[in-house]
This record gives sequence, C-alpha cells and structure tokens, in this order.
Amino acid sequence: MMNKERLKRVITEMKKLGLKQILVSDDPSIFWLTGRIVNPMERCGAILIKDDGDVHAFMNNLFCFAPLDGVTMHYYADGENPYKLIADELVPGPVGFDKNWASKHTISILKERNDIIPEFGSEPIDICKSHKDESEREALRHAAKINDMAVEFGINHISPELDELTLSNMIEEFFEKHGAVQDIQLQYVCYGKNAAEPHHGAVAGEMLHEGDAVLFDLWAPINNYWCDMTRTVFYKSVSEEHRKVYEIVKQAQQAAIDFVKPGVKMSDIDAVARKVISDAGYGEYFLTRTGHGVGMTVHEPPEASPSCDLVAEVGMCFSIEPGIYLKDNVGVRIEDLVIVTEDGCEVLTKYPKDLQVVE
Amino acid sequence: MMNKERLKRVITEMKKLGLKQILVSDDPSIFWLTGRIVNPMERCGAILIKDDGDVHAFMNNLFCFAPLDGVTMHYYADGENPYKLIADELVPGPVGFDKNWASKHTISILKERNDIIPEFGSEPIDICKSHKDESEREALRHAAKINDMAVEFGINHISPELDELTLSNMIEEFFEKHGAVQDIQLQYVCYGKNAAEPHHGAVAGEMLHEGDAVLFDLWAPINNYWCDMTRTVFYKSVSEEHRKVYEIVKQAQQAAIDFVKPGVKMSDIDAVARKVISDAGYGEYFLTRTGHGVGMTVHEPPEASPSCDLVAEVGMCFSIEPGIYLKDNVGVRIEDLVIVTEDGCEVLTKYPKDLQVVE
Ligand SMILES: [Mn+2]
Ligand SMILES: [Mn+2]
Repeated sequence: MMNKERLKRVITEMKKLGLKQILVSDDPSIFWLTGRIVNPMERCGAILIKDDGDVHAFMNNLFCFAPLDGVTMHYYADGENPYKLIADELVPGPVGFDKNWASKHTISILKERNDIIPEFGSEPIDICKSHKDESEREALRHAAKINDMAVEFGINHISPELDELTLSNMIEEFFEKHGAVQDIQLQYVCYGKNAAEPHHGAVAGEMLHEGDAVLFDLWAPINNYWCDMTRTVFYKSVSEEHRKVYEIVKQAQQAAIDFVKPGVKMSDIDAVARKVISDAGYGEYFLTRTGHGVGMTVHEPPEASPSCDLVAEVGMCFSIEPGIYLKDNVGVRIEDLVIVTEDGCEVLTKYPKDLQVVE
Repeated sequence: MMNKERLKRVITEMKKLGLKQILVSDDPSIFWLTGRIVNPMERCGAILIKDDGDVHAFMNNLFCFAPLDGVTMHYYADGENPYKLIADELVPGPVGFDKNWASKHTISILKERNDIIPEFGSEPIDICKSHKDESEREALRHAAKINDMAVEFGINHISPELDELTLSNMIEEFFEKHGAVQDIQLQYVCYGKNAAEPHHGAVAGEMLHEGDAVLFDLWAPINNYWCDMTRTVFYKSVSEEHRKVYEIVKQAQQAAIDFVKPGVKMSDIDAVARKVISDAGYGEYFLTRTGHGVGMTVHEPPEASPSCDLVAEVGMCFSIEPGIYLKDNVGVRIEDLVIVTEDGCEVLTKYPKDLQVVE
C-alpha cells in the first residue's frame, strides 16, 4: 500500500527543492514508500512522483508487483521498452533521477525525450527518510533491543579459548537467530591493541590476554532497519591508563548525548564530544567522526562530524560513538543510537556503560 | 600496468561502433584493463578512453591508485570536483558511459558540459571481454580444474547422513580452501525430486534416499575468473526411466559440444541440444537455455539460447548445460565450460560424464 503520509512529505520536499517530477528506483526507497521489496536486478523498475500528487509505477511483469491504490500502473514484458512508457508520462523540464540508478536507465529515458533535463532526484526521499516516523522508530527500537542482547551475549562469551573470528561468528549466528538476514559478515570483535584500529574486523587466531580491552562494535539489519552499537570491556584486569581513557570516552559520549536536541548543529554535537577528549589531552587520538545516521541503511545522513551542515531535527536517528585510539596499546569506543525528540533525545541502546572487567 | 593489447582491441571496437570516447567505471572492466582492483564505493573513479589512443584516469587520492604508464593521471581529494576534471578532457559530441555507473556521476558530468550527448558506452569492453585472451584462458582452465576437484569432493562425500545444506556448505569450504573468496554461498546440491527445479538451492533437512538423483551445480570465482559445472549421479540405484533420461541429456550435451566452432550461431548451439531432447520426446521438460557466457562474471554474453543473435568466435567461453526436469520425479543436468578454438572447442571441465551410481 502506498504510504500516503510519506508521499505527502516527499512532495513537500520536492516543492521546496523546485523538483516537479522525480523517478524513484532505489529498492529501499520503494520499500519505504510502498512496503514492498522489489528487486529488479538489471531490469527497469521505478515510481514516478509528480509534485501535483500524480504517481505512476513502471514494473516488469516478472516482478509480480500488484497494483497500488492511487497509483497508475504501467506493466511491461521482457522485449518491450519501459523507457518509452516512462518518457510518455514526463512533463518537459528537469527530471530528478535516483542517484544510484544504473546510468543505462537514465540514458535510455533521456534518449526518448529531448525536452527533459537530468537532475539529482534522491534528496526529497533522503530528507524524509532521515526523519523517522513512529513505525520506523518502533523498528529501530526493536533492532536496538536485539543489539543490546547481542552485546550481552558477546560479553558473556568472552573466553581465552575463543579467537576474535570465532566469537564474531557466534555473534553473527546470534543475530541471525534473532531475525538478521543479510550483510552481517564480520562483526567487529577486537582484542587488546587491535581495538586501537577503528575499523579492525575480527581476525582468526587472535587470542585474549589479561588486561586486554575487548571491543564489540555490532550491527545488523532487523526487519529492514539497522542497529549499531559499541561497548568496550576489559579482560581480567584494567590498567590505570586504560581506566582513565575509558572514563574520558564515557564522559565525552554522555556529554554529546546530553547536548542533542532539535535545532543544534550536527557539527556541534561532534564538537562537544571532541572538546571533552581534547581537554583531557587525547584530542589527536579521536580518529573518527562522532556519529552517523542509521535507518534502512547503516550509514546515512545526518552525520555528527565537523563537516556536516545539517541541524538535528525531531525523528532523526544517529549514532554517538566517540573513541580514543592509542596505537599498539588500546582502543576504547562507546556507541549508542539516539532518536531526536521534542526536548532532547531517546537513547535506543541500553546496555550499561560503567567500566566492566570480566573474568 | 595498462594492458596495451586489450586497450587496442577496445579502441578497434569503439571505432566500429562510432564511439569517439568512453568512460570506463565498472570495477571488473578497470581490473581487466589495468590489472588493478579499484573499489570507489560511492566516490567517482573512471578511465577515459578516446579513439585516438589518448587515455586518462580520474581517481580519488584515497584509492591509492598509482600512476599508469601511458595514461594521464588526474587525482582529486574529497571536497574537490572530479566531474570538472573529466568534463575538461571530453571532446564535444557523444560520450559513452558505463551501463551500471550510478546516475549521479553521469548527471554530474552532463551538468559540466552542454555540448556532450550521453551514450551507452559499455559495449566495446563487453565485446572484448567475451573474447578471452591466453592469460584469461589460463585463468579459466585453472578455475575449471578446481571445479572438477569440487565435484569429485562432493560425489565422494555423498552420504545418507548429510542433508543438502551441510554437503553444500562443505563444498563451499572446499572452494574457499582452493582460493574462492566471495559470492559462493549456497552451491546447488539437490537430492531426488529437488533436482527437477533448475534453480533449487540446497535446503537444510533434505535427506538422501535410495534411487535419488544427486545433482551438483557448482560455481565459484578463482582469481577473478569463474567456473561453473554440473554433474548428476544416482544414489545406490537408478531406475530404467532415470537411466534413459540421463543418457538423453548426455547425448544432447555432447551433440552441442561437438557442434561448437567459430561461425556457428549461438542460437543453433541451443537448437542442437534441444533437438536431441525433443526427438527423444522430452522437449517440454528442457526448461532452460543451453548455456551462458562465463568470465569475470558467471553470467555474461554470449548465451546459447533461442534468442541470442551472436555467433561463436574464437576465445569465447560459455557453458553447455542442457537438462531434463520431471517435476516431483527427477532432474538431470550436465554442464561443461568450453572455449571456442580455431576448429571447434576446448572443454575445460573434465570430470567423467558416464552414468555413475554411488554407494
Ligand atoms: Mn557506528
Ligand atoms: Mn551454469
């Protein structure tokens, strides 16, 4: 069923951007609009949205895409030309194309009409998708709950007998049992100095030693919405230096969370976390941005980084994940997902953050 | 290193098609031209080839793409506009774009110049890639040898204790041990009537019974070149009907192989296999095309099917895989990879095809 509320929001954004017509082809965007997964592979499948509310769908018979209420359906068979069908419905002038649609589709449509101008067309939907509505927030909360359980599972299974990769694979299996179905190879499980590399994936043969940090950065899509969280614990003991680093990261992360509310700049959220870490003398070891948007993809706008011009608005979901990375020594990162609310933010991931030493 | 011989062949094809300039962005195509894997993700990376032999590369600094002999290098950093760099090197008129390049790149380049016309640009490379040169034939032969070993491994491990999925996973692991690194989830291992579905993937809990066909359709990329082969054997016993079906498929497959030589139509290769099966009364149960091209992808031109207009030429590599599929009863398919030679074809996969009943 076409989600009329979302369609209305998209049209509002189209008008703001001066786009009279856009072609939506991205699978997650079509799912977001219609609740249906289409997988056209190399074939042409698209939904045309006009700013007057006129909507058309162009689908190959093979996709078994049933009619949608309020949408003019155009079906074609292999051997027929879908681009002519699309071109016939366009009005002269700019046409917004989805940013990642294969160029052959865009070029084929341009060949059918010499009175249209190709434009970037993904923004109206991207903007709307960055503001999660209530059903999306529920999906994100559910995914975050599974994520909490996965982190707990990981921490409970820390053992000197399991190398990083084995523990990572066990967590992957845990996620699969709880509904993750794709794209979750190689959860980040990092022992000791490996945690000092922000993007260290689990490696076979890497074993635990007393005093090691154990960093779990776990993510997975649950019912099409992603979760993403990080916890760092210590094995058997923790040095004074590591304890100090941990407490600074924890403080920076909390400061950034406390700062989030509608109207603050995403770059200022980054600045708040960065200031805590810099003031403590570790500024140069905070190697990443503070956070990234999460939704039907695991990295999407808005990002909490020095270069992001966006402002936090109600319904945006993103991670807050500052860290300190001391090469050949230790890495600490703490990551939660938050959703911006009227007066602050809701923290979705709830596993405790007090320093934990596991036996 | 830029492969000068391949570049020359591409330019010859460009001239035949009247394309003065093409932008190559597809990862496998760049690898095929330069021996280098680039993975630009959402960023812009492309090689511009002009029909006078002028070649330019446009790469983000992050890709660490070293200079190429005879190629003008254009590096850019995040925040800089790569499309301006590309546009500055184009001549007015048609520009060939790679078919699957994300539209945002194509549109960005079109916005920089109003004197260029977007064209389909993948064909010159696709045509050249369908004619394998000697180093590619070697890679395909090597992959086929691993494939023979994988089929033998599978047949040797047939057991009433292993369900389809377990045996499939064992074969996957075998492939990984022999150099396959990606995209090889779910090898086709089909017991009994499951073999009657041409695209049945292995299923957990499906067990063997006496008299079952056991179909192995195994494929994997080894050093970037794919293999793909099928053998069907029987478990403990074989009925008269199944033996008859097997012999017909074997005869059809051999007839098609014997027919392959330069100049024959791909559709006629299909027709030869189809005729043997139809003459034996099973025409309506041959549910697929006879074959598909194989190279750096597992399904590529040319295909041996009724609708393919291409002609077999020296160096083309494709599968020959007729089958008979009797619903709820049995499926038999035999598949080899062949490369067209001066006077016939070389069969890459060599595991025996005589009917085999395993204990
Ligand atoms: Mn994250
Ligand atoms: Mn095949």
